[in-house]
Amino acid sequence: KYGINKNSKQFADDWRAEYQPSMEKVRSGSREFVKLDILHDENLKNISKNYGLDTLSKEDWDWLVKSWHRLPGWKDSSKGLLRLKSKFIIASQSNGNIELILNMSKNSKLYWDMILGSEVVGYYKPQPEAYLVACEKVGLNPNECMMVAAHNSDLSSARNVGLKTAFILRSNEHGIHYEGIEQWKKRKGITGCIEKSTVFNGGSGISPWKFIRRCPIILSLLILLSTIFMYSKSLFLANAVNKTIFSSFRKSNL
Amino acid sequence: KYGINKNSKQFADDWRAEYQPSMEKVRSGSREFVKLDILHDENLKNISKNYGLDTLSKEDWDWLVKSWHRLPGWKDSSKGLLRLKSKFIIASQSNGNIELILNMSKNSKLYWDMILGSEVVGYYKPQPEAYLVACEKVGLNPNECMMVAAHNSDLSSARNVGLKTAFILRSNEHGIHYEGIEQWKKRKGITGCIEKSTVFNGGSGISPWKFIRRCPIILSLLILLSTIFMYSKSLFLANAVNKTIFSSFRKSNL
Repeated sequence: KYGINKNSKQFADDWRAEYQPSMEKVRSGSREFVKLDILHDENLKNISKNYGLDTLSKEDWDWLVKSWHRLPGWKDSSKGLLRLKSKFIIASQSNGNIELILNMSKNSKLYWDMILGSEVVGYYKPQPEAYLVACEKVGLNPNECMMVAAHNSDLSSARNVGLKTAFILRSNEHGIHYEGIEQWKKRKGITGCIEKSTVFNGGSGISPWKFIRRCPIILSLLILLSTIFMYSKSLFLANAVNKTIFSSFRKSNL
Repeated sequence: KYGINKNSKQFADDWRAEYQPSMEKVRSGSREFVKLDILHDENLKNISKNYGLDTLSKEDWDWLVKSWHRLPGWKDSSKGLLRLKSKFIIASQSNGNIELILNMSKNSKLYWDMILGSEVVGYYKPQPEAYLVACEKVGLNPNECMMVAAHNSDLSSARNVGLKTAFILRSNEHGIHYEGIEQWKKRKGITGCIEKSTVFNGGSGISPWKFIRRCPIILSLLILLSTIFMYSKSLFLANAVNKTIFSSFRKSNL
């Protein structure tokens, strides 16, 4: 309706490219914590002229900023989470704010026990506090928790502060930048879908990653799962439930 | 095992009597925000000598402090919430901290979309901010939200800042201080189970309190329900899902 017909794939990439630098200002302490919706808004402003978006009405602008709230879940995420939920506490620990994750989850039937994330813990991943405060909020030690994610960098940071980790492969997470599984593994320097550190000592007959393997969850949130009721206490963290902006962005009616 | 055999009903009352005064210090700003688990711990210390509890091991003491995490839900709460969840966003907005509500909810199968509450919003009810920040966190205006509770004082405070309200009767909320429904109504100065302010203009054919009437939820948390997906946006708040310490406290093996 604005006669805008630019390269939407490039647009998604450009917008996403602003993501880490904008969070870095908060991480480094050079600005106070602000929620991700605000960073998305500012980041869109930074690139809007290149795409002729500076003429958008406030309503359309806000709709675009909140496209992150509408990212669809991967097909298997809803069922997988429900199975995990029957045994563990599951919680998202995304860099997204509460409203964003709430809308996204409600839309894709992702039934968390709790939405944690940057707005609740006050830190952006991969800062150590982002993981540690999440564990603290649910009353568990880091070694009782497991972080499940599709990003090795996320898992690496969680592992550094004592959490268990599990990796789930979403080879087409980056949308158009599709890579075959083999290339992807090579690039990430991993040898399988489940990292070594996944081995879990819950004192139970069933290992948590067996659950995860059965229900390959997916991309961009965090699960906190705890065996509070079935096993001794333990906690998971995952970051692989919904599709990313890369794989989701479609040309709108702009 | 400690040979303690005191009046457990009186004990529950005494412990609960410390509840409001301890929160009041935070509300008035005379102390920084601390989560409810810490207040419960301090409050137990205040009365512990009267009940010979000062000899408890650390493990047993912590078990006692966390008895609030084990309060059972009312029988109809789990099913009621599930029905509400299919149409609305539901969230607890209790004065309890995240871990407390999480354990309680997991135990009684209360399937919130989000656990808000004092630890997330940073204020204790009935401070106005406790309601307003809760609405803000989920991205809704107060008039798009409904607070559902078994305490009129809670509803009154929510209404003062623009939320819709619904009252649910739990006449035996106070355990041994049982009152017949008629006496209860009289004492509370209400004329029915649903307050006048419950009337809801969601633009839909089905009014939310019809749902609530069908599934009488109950006592001690808060529900945020939004019609984001079915109707125009709107939000509920309820405080009536689990039994209170009054109605739950049993003589333990202490």
